[in-house]
Amino acid sequence: MRYTVSDDSIFVNRRNYYLPSKPFAVICYDGFDPSYLADAAIRGISPRLSAMAEQGFCASVHSAMPSFTNPNNVSIVCGAPPRVHGISGNYWYDRATGEEVMMTDAGPLGAPTILAGLAEAGVKVAAVTAKDKLRKALAAGLAGEGLPGIAFSAEKASTSTRAEHGIAGAEIQAGQPVPDQYSPELSLFVLDAGLRLLRSGRAQVLYLSLSDFVQHAHAPGAPESDAFIRAVDDRVGALIDAGATVGIVADHGMTDLSLADGSPNILYLGDRLDARYGAGQTRVICPITDPFVRHHGALGGFVRVHILGDLEHDEVRAFLSRLPGVELALSREEMCRRFDQPMEREGDVAVIAGKGVALGTHEGAHALGELAGARLRSHGSLAERNVPFLVSQPLNAMYRRKAATEQLHNYDIFDFVLNGTRSEGN
Amino acid sequence: MRYTVSDDSIFVNRRNYYLPSKPFAVICYDGFDPSYLADAAIRGISPRLSAMAEQGFCASVHSAMPSFTNPNNVSIVCGAPPRVHGISGNYWYDRATGEEVMMTDAGPLGAPTILAGLAEAGVKVAAVTAKDKLRKALAAGLAGEGLPGIAFSAEKASTSTRAEHGIAGAEIQAGQPVPDQYSPELSLFVLDAGLRLLRSGRAQVLYLSLSDFVQHAHAPGAPESDAFIRAVDDRVGALIDAGATVGIVADHGMTDLSLADGSPNILYLGDRLDARYGAGQTRVICPITDPFVRHHGALGGFVRVHILGDLEHDEVRAFLSRLPGVELALSREEMCRRFDQPMEREGDVAVIAGKGVALGTHEGAHALGELAGARLRSHGSLAERNVPFLVSQPLNAMYRRKAATEQLHNYDIFDFVLNGTRSEGN
Repeated sequence: MRYTVSDDSIFVNRRNYYLPSKPFAVICYDGFDPSYLADAAIRGISPRLSAMAEQGFCASVHSAMPSFTNPNNVSIVCGAPPRVHGISGNYWYDRATGEEVMMTDAGPLGAPTILAGLAEAGVKVAAVTAKDKLRKALAAGLAGEGLPGIAFSAEKASTSTRAEHGIAGAEIQAGQPVPDQYSPELSLFVLDAGLRLLRSGRAQVLYLSLSDFVQHAHAPGAPESDAFIRAVDDRVGALIDAGATVGIVADHGMTDLSLADGSPNILYLGDRLDARYGAGQTRVICPITDPFVRHHGALGGFVRVHILGDLEHDEVRAFLSRLPGVELALSREEMCRRFDQPMEREGDVAVIAGKGVALGTHEGAHALGELAGARLRSHGSLAERNVPFLVSQPLNAMYRRKAATEQLHNYDIFDFVLNGTRSEGN
Repeated sequence: MRYTVSDDSIFVNRRNYYLPSKPFAVICYDGFDPSYLADAAIRGISPRLSAMAEQGFCASVHSAMPSFTNPNNVSIVCGAPPRVHGISGNYWYDRATGEEVMMTDAGPLGAPTILAGLAEAGVKVAAVTAKDKLRKALAAGLAGEGLPGIAFSAEKASTSTRAEHGIAGAEIQAGQPVPDQYSPELSLFVLDAGLRLLRSGRAQVLYLSLSDFVQHAHAPGAPESDAFIRAVDDRVGALIDAGATVGIVADHGMTDLSLADGSPNILYLGDRLDARYGAGQTRVICPITDPFVRHHGALGGFVRVHILGDLEHDEVRAFLSRLPGVELALSREEMCRRFDQPMEREGDVAVIAGKGVALGTHEGAHALGELAGARLRSHGSLAERNVPFLVSQPLNAMYRRKAATEQLHNYDIFDFVLNGTRSEGN
């Protein structure tokens, strides 16, 4: 066992979390760039989110790097950065085998989750995700064979079983159809299913992880963005009205990576490296690569470069750092030190894109056709590291002080929700 | 005298600068967001800038905060942040008089400039700016009554005199007409005039400061942006061909602050504060305010809030920090500590906008009509802090190490150009 359970709290990854005496819901609003929240609040189209900011707590915080979905979801449920749990991207280049491996398939997480800890302490916990790949990672120690919790995805809701997911498909759906995986409704299904679990008393702590389908496709203020925010806002209100204290963070922001004419602004690092050092000397891994490729053509603001040939690593790093469009090119050690990454999965050089630039491997290797002429909007760099952090209840004095003096991260949300909203006398 | 001149160097604001043995030009490419350079390099439309990056040095660095024109130009010529020289915006609220004062009119700079130091050491120095207000600040100790250097603006080129500017209007123009102050040509005039000074031997060190007219109006890849970059690139090439070592930085980046429908995304802090605390209790200063208001309607990503009424400062700070659209709301002390600002000109609360958001005072108080329906593109926040940093010559080993290990700023450019390109034996 990797967490300690005491009478009133659990201890997970060097933090203490009080056991809840009332319901809590943490929402990971995938790709919810702060610009969406700002615009919605200014135009008054998200009254419940605005009320959270006014009456509870609101701040702009950092996501874990790289600003991708899986590293951040796992960081949030662990309350700790990728260095601790090992998930630093979707795909990872295994030096030993020379193969690209989906990180969430590469074995168990390197750290226990808060969700599993709470479940072991007797709290009714449910994790609901949009995508099934992510559900598998978050279910560790929580749901499945002999475990007490619930963990399922909207994507595979209909085929869920009590044995594997802690709940059967028909119970999840309660008559609601399962939406298409490329739709705004997939995220709304997650929230609706969470609300049913809360209302029926089947869960006291909810982790609800949405999809960034809408944000990849539409800028703030677009009718589609407005409609989605309104729909999420309604459901956030319903969770609060049902008695839950709600925390909302995003896994990453979202930036338009297109030029004035709408074409994507892509720096193909594989091509540059091949031209400089010869083909086969280096390998560029895009850790945003995802079975849901239609969102972004596997183009984001962060890549890892592995040096296969006999090249001076620092020479390659310096070459990459001088390329316009590159914000930072860091050695493996420096990337891990500055951004809390796990060493064993880091590239020889980690490359963070400049603002407005997507990093790719080779021209022609990315499924740009999937964008169907839409502007490329994506994430991964420091430009998408700032994310909203909302809590529906006021913070106690200790956490107000913490917020005013420390750099907060999205993975502090369980700490703030479970510990920061307890009244001072407790 | 506030700098020390020795045989081979000057000492200004705690840094040593070697006297040049060949010509040098430092260009402040106003509003040159890294996304313009990245795009131009990727599409190959700026061959001379690309050659600088490949054969010399290129990095993404930080500007001084706030990411505005005057604080950064002065920081660059001082080689030091606003805390040292006192220019932390265009306008400043004088607590003693209750008036808003243009900072560059508020008395001499709080620090000497590298330009004046070089001129005193006998180097032929010329500063050429697009705007005249900025020229006045940069001319301190350099040009005018009894001083040896040259300092003039493109805006007022035709009325320049030897007595005040170190050169007469007709000599500056050499037959070239003075362009409109709202035109791309104003910046090109700066570069052309600098080139003439270099070729004629009238200047050995040039500081050439452009205008961000094009970048406020056009995104990367727009035909107007491309045309401007090509024109600047030609002139950078001409300076290099004429024998100059060239350094290029920007004073700040540029971000689209509009919604999907093209309307500006503005958070009116004055209105919010009035609604919360009552009118007249607080005063919001937009230090981007500028006689060149047509660029941006005095809307940017940074404002200072002064508390006039009997309000708890930290309560106001906490209120502002919870507003969606605010990235950071910092106490005066914290702003000065984190971003090297001068205390006497800081607000009681400094507010940095979130990505994609402009901060304003009151609805109706900003000249939005001047935008004439164009998208609002502006700067001031951390989203515009990253700027390109280019040097046309390779760096020596010490400066390569510096670049690999320290956070560089645009105000390191004179250090890198004058000291970093000296051969190691020197």
